Amino acid sequence: MTVPNLAGLELPAVFPPAGAYRSAILHNGMLHTAGHIPLGADGTPVTGCLGDMLTVADGVAAARLAALSLLATVQAELGTLERVDRFLRVYGVVNATPGFADHTTVIDGASEVFIRVFGERGEHARLAVGVSSLPANLALEVEATIAVFSGALTRQHLAARDARIVG
Amino acid sequence: MTVPNLAGLELPAVFPPAGAYRSAILHNGMLHTAGHIPLGADGTPVTGCLGDMLTVADGVAAARLAALSLLATVQAELGTLERVDRFLRVYGVVNATPGFADHTTVIDGASEVFIRVFGERGEHARLAVGVSSLPANLALEVEATIAVFSGALTRQHLAARDARIVG
Amino acid sequence: MTVPNLAGLELPAVFPPAGAYRSAILHNGMLHTAGHIPLGADGTPVTGCLGDMLTVADGVAAARLAALSLLATVQAELGTLERVDRFLRVYGVVNATPGFADHTTVIDGASEVFIRVFGERGEHARLAVGVSSLPANLALEVEATIAVFSGALTRQHLAARDARIVG
Repeated sequence: MTVPNLAGLELPAVFPPAGAYRSAILHNGMLHTAGHIPLGADGTPVTGCLGDMLTVADGVAAARLAALSLLATVQAELGTLERVDRFLRVYGVVNATPGFADHTTVIDGASEVFIRVFGERGEHARLAVGVSSLPANLALEVEATIAVFSGALTRQHLAARDARIVG
Repeated sequence: MTVPNLAGLELPAVFPPAGAYRSAILHNGMLHTAGHIPLGADGTPVTGCLGDMLTVADGVAAARLAALSLLATVQAELGTLERVDRFLRVYGVVNATPGFADHTTVIDGASEVFIRVFGERGEHARLAVGVSSLPANLALEVEATIAVFSGALTRQHLAARDARIVG
Repeated sequence: MTVPNLAGLELPAVFPPAGAYRSAILHNGMLHTAGHIPLGADGTPVTGCLGDMLTVADGVAAARLAALSLLATVQAELGTLERVDRFLRVYGVVNATPGFADHTTVIDGASEVFIRVFGERGEHARLAVGVSSLPANLALEVEATIAVFSGALTRQHLAARDARIVG
């Protein structure tokens, strides 16, 4: 069982799908998430192009917001973040000008959230690219593939933990 | 077992790989498809750039064609669409101008085919992005990861169904 | 067990992650690799844009280098390339000008390495796209999802092979 550390982080409300898809699909111990977008504290998406309207620091902040929105979806889908076994793959797409070169720094903003919350279990393989456009002119999106414990296993682990606490 | 609904849809001929890859790989209950391209009724690929030569409506129609071509591959690979357990992930890449913002509407054209054919089992997590170029100037491509029933399980289910019908 | 054929190929040193991610994650018989970059013989990354500074031939050579770097990671992660069961999916992203159309030829440079080394087990579903920018102005990146044998199974197979050789 994972012991996620959310200290100092606040998960936003779950963001609903914007089209004919679902925010995540759980099947056979694997959670496949949709691309998640950066949402400001007031729920407004972060839009614009890296290398033009947005700085690298803006991008890092946006990636962090997208990662938190992704975790909100994971929590809603699994019931608890404790069911996260380990992150496998993260894909970050950055709305960027030709010649923009700092995608690694930008998407680290998302990766560092996952590692901060889940430790070694949050580490992942990753691809980060620059795209010429994104839906609604979003600044970036983050997608993840995550291995999860079954609900039964988690309940068993929780019971064992409770027994230890009571004992 | 899935009962796919192809009413009103016609699957095109299977499109062969254009390079050193395969149109789909089935392994351990998971079908990974290659990017599938939009092919018109005469087999001509739909080319051009969204936001320039092509309208959003053109894009929706192209995404629908790419989805049908993908299903033709799935059917060829599995023998029958009844072996589809559930769609997991769809990735849509749209050849688009910088500033194009309607990727969600465009790729919904593909997603709605999968949901129409497979119902809830066709729902999926999704990422849709705009890319600056695609092979042969294609308008878009659609890739999917799909969980499938084993052939044995399907035969067993078919036998059970036949027994019920006979009985 | 796979019998990889590296004749005529030389794997480079393992390239370390450039950010907050890992070069590969192995979980439950699946290896998810990060995007791998083309590195010249002196360790210098191949940079530039296809259709501008770089020709298609440059791109093919770069894709081959990225594939070899990816195999170096696979070997380091698994201990031996013999544990590769089969390639499932390859994703190639090409730093390309709008209107560049030869992504298939370029990424074939990577795919042909995998097929040369692993034969039928190296065949894969694939998506190749053009992106408007990549980290550090890289020419391209290649990512793969690979099914692997467990270490235990490999040891068993190796023992069986040794027994045959001894006997």
